[in-house]
Amino acid sequence: MKRIAIVIALVAGAAVSHADEGMWTYNHFPSDQVKQKYGFSPDAKWLEHAQLSSARISQGCSASFVSENGLVMTNHHCARSCIQQLSTPKNDMVAQGFYAKNLPDEVKCPEMEINQLVEISDVTARMSKATAGLSGKPYNDAEKAESSRIEKECASSDSVRCDVVSLYHGGAYNLYKYRRYQDVRLVFAPEEAIAFFGGDPDNFMFPRYDLDVSFVRVYDGGKPAHMDSYFRWSPAGVKDGDLTFVSGHPGGTQRQLTIAELEAQREWNLPRALIRLAEMRGMIAEYQNRGPEEKRHSNAMLFGIENSFKALNGRLEALQDKEFFASKVAEEKALRAKVDNDAALKQYAAAWDAVAKAESEYHQIENPYEFMEGNAGFSSTYFGLAKLLVRAGDERPKPLDKRFREYRDSNLPALTQRLLSPAPIYDELETARLTWSLTKLREKLGADHPFVKKVLGKQSPAEVAKNLIAHTKLRDVAYRKQLWDGGKKAVDASDDAFIKLARFIDGDARAIRKRYEDNIESVLKKNDEAIAKARFAVEGMNTYPDATFTLRLSYGTVKGYNENGRFIAPLTNFAGAFERATGRDPFALPATWNAAKPKLVMKTPFDFCTTNDIIGGNSGSPVINQKGEIVGLIFDGNIQSLGGEYGFDPKVNRAVAVHSEALIHALDKIYGAERIVNELRPQKRATR
Amino acid sequence: MKRIAIVIALVAGAAVSHADEGMWTYNHFPSDQVKQKYGFSPDAKWLEHAQLSSARISQGCSASFVSENGLVMTNHHCARSCIQQLSTPKNDMVAQGFYAKNLPDEVKCPEMEINQLVEISDVTARMSKATAGLSGKPYNDAEKAESSRIEKECASSDSVRCDVVSLYHGGAYNLYKYRRYQDVRLVFAPEEAIAFFGGDPDNFMFPRYDLDVSFVRVYDGGKPAHMDSYFRWSPAGVKDGDLTFVSGHPGGTQRQLTIAELEAQREWNLPRALIRLAEMRGMIAEYQNRGPEEKRHSNAMLFGIENSFKALNGRLEALQDKEFFASKVAEEKALRAKVDNDAALKQYAAAWDAVAKAESEYHQIENPYEFMEGNAGFSSTYFGLAKLLVRAGDERPKPLDKRFREYRDSNLPALTQRLLSPAPIYDELETARLTWSLTKLREKLGADHPFVKKVLGKQSPAEVAKNLIAHTKLRDVAYRKQLWDGGKKAVDASDDAFIKLARFIDGDARAIRKRYEDNIESVLKKNDEAIAKARFAVEGMNTYPDATFTLRLSYGTVKGYNENGRFIAPLTNFAGAFERATGRDPFALPATWNAAKPKLVMKTPFDFCTTNDIIGGNSGSPVINQKGEIVGLIFDGNIQSLGGEYGFDPKVNRAVAVHSEALIHALDKIYGAERIVNELRPQKRATR
Repeated sequence: MKRIAIVIALVAGAAVSHADEGMWTYNHFPSDQVKQKYGFSPDAKWLEHAQLSSARISQGCSASFVSENGLVMTNHHCARSCIQQLSTPKNDMVAQGFYAKNLPDEVKCPEMEINQLVEISDVTARMSKATAGLSGKPYNDAEKAESSRIEKECASSDSVRCDVVSLYHGGAYNLYKYRRYQDVRLVFAPEEAIAFFGGDPDNFMFPRYDLDVSFVRVYDGGKPAHMDSYFRWSPAGVKDGDLTFVSGHPGGTQRQLTIAELEAQREWNLPRALIRLAEMRGMIAEYQNRGPEEKRHSNAMLFGIENSFKALNGRLEALQDKEFFASKVAEEKALRAKVDNDAALKQYAAAWDAVAKAESEYHQIENPYEFMEGNAGFSSTYFGLAKLLVRAGDERPKPLDKRFREYRDSNLPALTQRLLSPAPIYDELETARLTWSLTKLREKLGADHPFVKKVLGKQSPAEVAKNLIAHTKLRDVAYRKQLWDGGKKAVDASDDAFIKLARFIDGDARAIRKRYEDNIESVLKKNDEAIAKARFAVEGMNTYPDATFTLRLSYGTVKGYNENGRFIAPLTNFAGAFERATGRDPFALPATWNAAKPKLVMKTPFDFCTTNDIIGGNSGSPVINQKGEIVGLIFDGNIQSLGGEYGFDPKVNRAVAVHSEALIHALDKIYGAERIVNELRPQKRATR
Repeated sequence: MKRIAIVIALVAGAAVSHADEGMWTYNHFPSDQVKQKYGFSPDAKWLEHAQLSSARISQGCSASFVSENGLVMTNHHCARSCIQQLSTPKNDMVAQGFYAKNLPDEVKCPEMEINQLVEISDVTARMSKATAGLSGKPYNDAEKAESSRIEKECASSDSVRCDVVSLYHGGAYNLYKYRRYQDVRLVFAPEEAIAFFGGDPDNFMFPRYDLDVSFVRVYDGGKPAHMDSYFRWSPAGVKDGDLTFVSGHPGGTQRQLTIAELEAQREWNLPRALIRLAEMRGMIAEYQNRGPEEKRHSNAMLFGIENSFKALNGRLEALQDKEFFASKVAEEKALRAKVDNDAALKQYAAAWDAVAKAESEYHQIENPYEFMEGNAGFSSTYFGLAKLLVRAGDERPKPLDKRFREYRDSNLPALTQRLLSPAPIYDELETARLTWSLTKLREKLGADHPFVKKVLGKQSPAEVAKNLIAHTKLRDVAYRKQLWDGGKKAVDASDDAFIKLARFIDGDARAIRKRYEDNIESVLKKNDEAIAKARFAVEGMNTYPDATFTLRLSYGTVKGYNENGRFIAPLTNFAGAFERATGRDPFALPATWNAAKPKLVMKTPFDFCTTNDIIGGNSGSPVINQKGEIVGLIFDGNIQSLGGEYGFDPKVNRAVAVHSEALIHALDKIYGAERIVNELRPQKRATR
């Protein structure tokens, strides 16, 4: 049974040093602490090399550069949407896998962007100056405007990406400067059956037998990009007890939230999200019974829904653990007591109540906000494109500091990549999703809500969806480009059904967004910053910030754990995969594996788990050894790690990775992917 | 927006008298209180007449006898499953409605049982004696055994039904003796489009325009049963401000639960149930797209799921209301303080913590309990029948006090009615539901759970479901009868796939049930009883017990309310229905209504709301006036009434009913159902 058993999670401050806890920024890695515990610590050169060899997939994953010719290793599930976008009813690359035998066979991913972090600089002083003395809407506006300005100054061309990152919930602001690659081509992907062996039942579980890998390549000027830094392959791999580092991009944690924020998650936000995901899951799973093509084109969506469902459910269970929650309450109480009793800190004392009030206000408007502005009422790729175009028409002509943040100059390359993606859109799936979400719009706001009447009129959700999809040209990339290039004038002149809808409701959507930003977001931001400052003053600065989908380094060791009184060994092998196989999805091994079975060395390590502190977004991160060599590929955490959102439990929280030897063994013996093996290990030696 | 706004709900004791609160038992109706407030109170004769004229549909609804010839009025949604069971692909009576023009045209409902409460007697002393000095398993066993014995002594024949009812959570035990009718025939049902006008969006809402009525008739010896008592029809109907009584069978409330129990609901049980319902809802809603026949045969299921979802969601929102919950906490704290400080009551002091511990233990086993014994893993009519037969084989030969309670003699007529029902079972729907629930079984217990391996082996959930359904004969009523009559021997010899499965897993299911009954149910029952006694001692006995699906009488008045600053008038009329209609499901009026429009008097009252305190199970209850005449038919509560599960808020909690004039007007002018109109109003006068 999958129960979270966080006994007492250590969440901040001095306590951190006792566990392998922390998603550390590269500019504040706790080298002394690691040295003390493991007798080794990365030096500046090691860190620089690892930083430059790490990669981020901007849609939400991690990766690594693994050759001087721009080869990038990540998870299968991180390239999954690319693989599906490149597939056709006749060539289902998700099911069959893909291997570009030669360089010219590599195929461009329609929507993938890869970033390499080249520089971090501190812009806290400049940001503080911009917001000094402000609060509420002016504070929020100034914070966003200054961020946009800093990013614009930094990003000299489209191949440079700059993001101002708020760390410690506003306690510090750093500028992250990236090399941006938008020409990314698919090199290799195994069959989904082995990349995601065990499917949803085994997701977030351990022991595990997944070859969750894909290789892509970044191109520059039409040629493979040359990388000065990249990770070498370890000749030895990794074994029980070895020290491991994970360099990746954890998407977000919430370890520094207030109790009011955690309560809002436990009581409102998580149950609400789970209920929505559950209904979508039931709908899409049954939609797949319409036929094999429907199954194929909705598989990625179902995977995403089930993965989110399981992850959020784990979080909810963590917050429902009374002992864990009590430890959070005690921690906040202690901090607030110190703040209340210190003349210098008293200025921060009101922040917690302000946060609680803002959470409660959000609860009042969450339905209109999520359904009118958050697109929960319009679950449709077409609608997303239409809204992007309508808003671009209004926003792009504005001065930088007056625009919605997503239309800042430094974000335009990402927007246009999405807008002009040639990835197919499936009208049947669009119709099903849109009908469903319009039904939810009516359900959540009520049939008599003016916005609902505006959208539906006297029609049913199914009719509205059908009519919209019958009268759109947005499936045509050229038409989208024409509207983007033509700006507001072109958009206003368009008679496309989705464009007309997006235009028609944009005023309502903007109004609720304004209410959210002015009354809630600004309050949370300002007061979270105050709490961060209070925390620094009380606990010192030698802790790590909550994850922000920026590069972090964690340390740990290969280590098993106890679950319900049973010891779980930290490594699995190929034999285990064949034992677990039933021949039925999701426990069916691909034909290639059964065919190659005689050639395989069954004791070759397959997957392993470590104590590294990771979270969603770390998928695709390299696991590296002391020499900075690849020994594994992160693809999951165990079920107990889901509580890692709120606190790290060293006893049972484990990161889960594919072993480097498994990757080589499979590429070599099962897939005959010699070209990749040679590129990964130019030193070439026979696999065991 | 549908928000619960329970300000301070009055939950018990002396406070009750200030509001129209309470689902009062007929043997303890607060006549003085009503008299004081309204200047009228039912006397013994009035009460006896109302009691004998009220009816219960044992599957979960209320009803009333409305003629001396056994005519019964209830809601359309209470006869919905009968109407669907009698329908065929070619004759969809749910969509088309039904009217038996002549007595011989009335059709038997396959699974309906109607009860008339003839006697209530107090058996508290006898029950207390049986359980005196016991606790844990012996307490629980003795409590059940004595109940079964009392019921058996009382029920002289199959046409008598006797239930021992635990009131006040064990504070008192009453024996309810009913006349049982199992020959129930359908007389009239309108089209679902008007019975459930507004569908799920308008469910639990007000204002409303629903003709949620159906008429059935109880038969005795093949002839309409003669009723000595029945409700007459009011010639005048009801208007704003009128005093109203509702006599019906509220299914259950939880106003006397402890805080630990309420917290378990808020944090665990309700989110869990909502997530499950949401997924089923998505699945069945999309299943309906398979085709019109699939839509037809799954409609009742979807209605049930959506109705439950909305009801439970309302409960969750009520418990999430911080102010309301705080009032519950304060109330318990005050009661516990009195108990702690009173030498005579101290014996009850430990009960609250014992309840909390049992709730927490239940949380540990809820997955295996619900999935292995609670059938959550086997969502299938066939499986339910197979389990009934397998267990009957083992249980029926045992002495009464050793059997599972559902196999007690007094319950056998209900079991055999279900077992031998000729209602169709739809294999396609069975396959979809069973596949889905087996997938959930694997998800919730984990792929490696021994029980899951036992059920699935190396097969997929879809294969298992398909194989079971391909190899069952349980669709044949004669075969089921053969296994019932043949007992254990016949069941053991059966090679039916479902029977084999039910037999194969029965040991595991019994084991987890035993654990639940011995360690959790027994503790809750014993300690709830202790709390009830403490409450009586502190608050006196002049309050009403939580609802128990036994006959209750509530009083109130026709009254509007304020919602989001807007006043909602208490009566709607026919004109409103035509205004609200869009022509699209669920806001499409039936063709009969559009055709009859010129004949209708548009200002005729349609639906109305009252302050009567009701809850799920009250559906189909008669609304009666001071003279004991029918003035309406309960079919819903407003959205604010959903919090009534935990406490009554007189400001906004409203019962929703069809007006008696609307019923007559529609029967007369739209349906030409003269035979029924004449039977309801033998005094016959023209409708307005």
